[in-house]
Amino acid sequence: MQAGKPILYSYFRSSCSWRVRIALALKGIDYETIPVNLIKDQGQQFSEEFQALNPMKQVPALKIDGITISQSLAIIEFLEETRPTPRLLPKDPKKRAQVRMISDTIASGIQPLQNLSVLKQVGQENQLAWAQKVIHTGFNALEQILRNTAGKYCVGDEVSMADLCLVPQVANAERFKVDLTPYPTISRINKTLLALEAFQVSHPCRQPDTPPELRA
Amino acid sequence: MQAGKPILYSYFRSSCSWRVRIALALKGIDYETIPVNLIKDQGQQFSEEFQALNPMKQVPALKIDGITISQSLAIIEFLEETRPTPRLLPKDPKKRAQVRMISDTIASGIQPLQNLSVLKQVGQENQLAWAQKVIHTGFNALEQILRNTAGKYCVGDEVSMADLCLVPQVANAERFKVDLTPYPTISRINKTLLALEAFQVSHPCRQPDTPPELRA
Repeated sequence: MQAGKPILYSYFRSSCSWRVRIALALKGIDYETIPVNLIKDQGQQFSEEFQALNPMKQVPALKIDGITISQSLAIIEFLEETRPTPRLLPKDPKKRAQVRMISDTIASGIQPLQNLSVLKQVGQENQLAWAQKVIHTGFNALEQILRNTAGKYCVGDEVSMADLCLVPQVANAERFKVDLTPYPTISRINKTLLALEAFQVSHPCRQPDTPPELRA
Repeated sequence: MQAGKPILYSYFRSSCSWRVRIALALKGIDYETIPVNLIKDQGQQFSEEFQALNPMKQVPALKIDGITISQSLAIIEFLEETRPTPRLLPKDPKKRAQVRMISDTIASGIQPLQNLSVLKQVGQENQLAWAQKVIHTGFNALEQILRNTAGKYCVGDEVSMADLCLVPQVANAERFKVDLTPYPTISRINKTLLALEAFQVSHPCRQPDTPPELRA
């Protein structure tokens, strides 16, 4: 198996792809992007070629070290184990548990319920209300959790995997016009993180597949 | 903080609670169960007392070593880091990535879309079709992934976190009357795992809160 640059299958607006892009940026890993347009051609993730890479027909997927990994958190944990610097999980097992708890709250408890395939099933006229309800329920919990765990970032003062999940989820919330006033801790951490370079270069408005009208 | 027995907040039929019960059984960790009935009293997970423990209002939650952790995979990873024997993640980072990829496929890609709170929103008359569709989509992917990773179990011949996710998800599939014929690999691994003691003592039909008519 030839060791070339890692290849990230990504969609500019996918919040799960963004999580991985932030990890790659923070760890300074050079990679190539292959865009998978979730809208065009009735969804390029449904192509036979892509299904062979990720049978779940979802982005992201990362080709690296001779394997292909799907599921954003599995990818980030692999990067953490094979490229440990800078670390995205704290040393202390209890803090690591907090990071994973927050990450999973977003990755299992919020995002899957407001992703494209679910919203399609919910029907056009109900999409916005559905997504807003899901995000409000999740953010109410998250705000309460973060009050106990946060320092400058989600858990203490080091950027962690939890932060990689938070920022893309807040972007989804904004896209669905969720009022963020009830979530001052989430909003404060999000703003602090967005000032960091790794969160900026990985931003949906700056990807190879970002449409010109959405570039910034 | 006094170090007593760990306390698991659990519901007998919750597939996420079952994942953690298997981990505790495999690792031989003695614990106390506090049942949280998701149906009774309009849902005991919504009580103020429980919300203070887990703001997401979901089971499981585990009180252990002076902290309370929610999210089943975060709990299992914590147990793995603090009680490493027998291990639930392989040594090799690539195999660990496969275990996490399969676990997340179930924990983020399937289970959240067919859990109680979503089915409530979908409405009584659509619940069964919705749950079946979600599980079929996920199992189609899983069957394909397992063909590449499985030995005796989901990844090779050692029981891993992926197996702890698989068996409870298959039980959900059976509850929703999903035809498992198209998934011979899933079915074979599930059957092999159900013969293990840790999967039996943790089974929904043998919990302190299992109603008498469902006991076995």
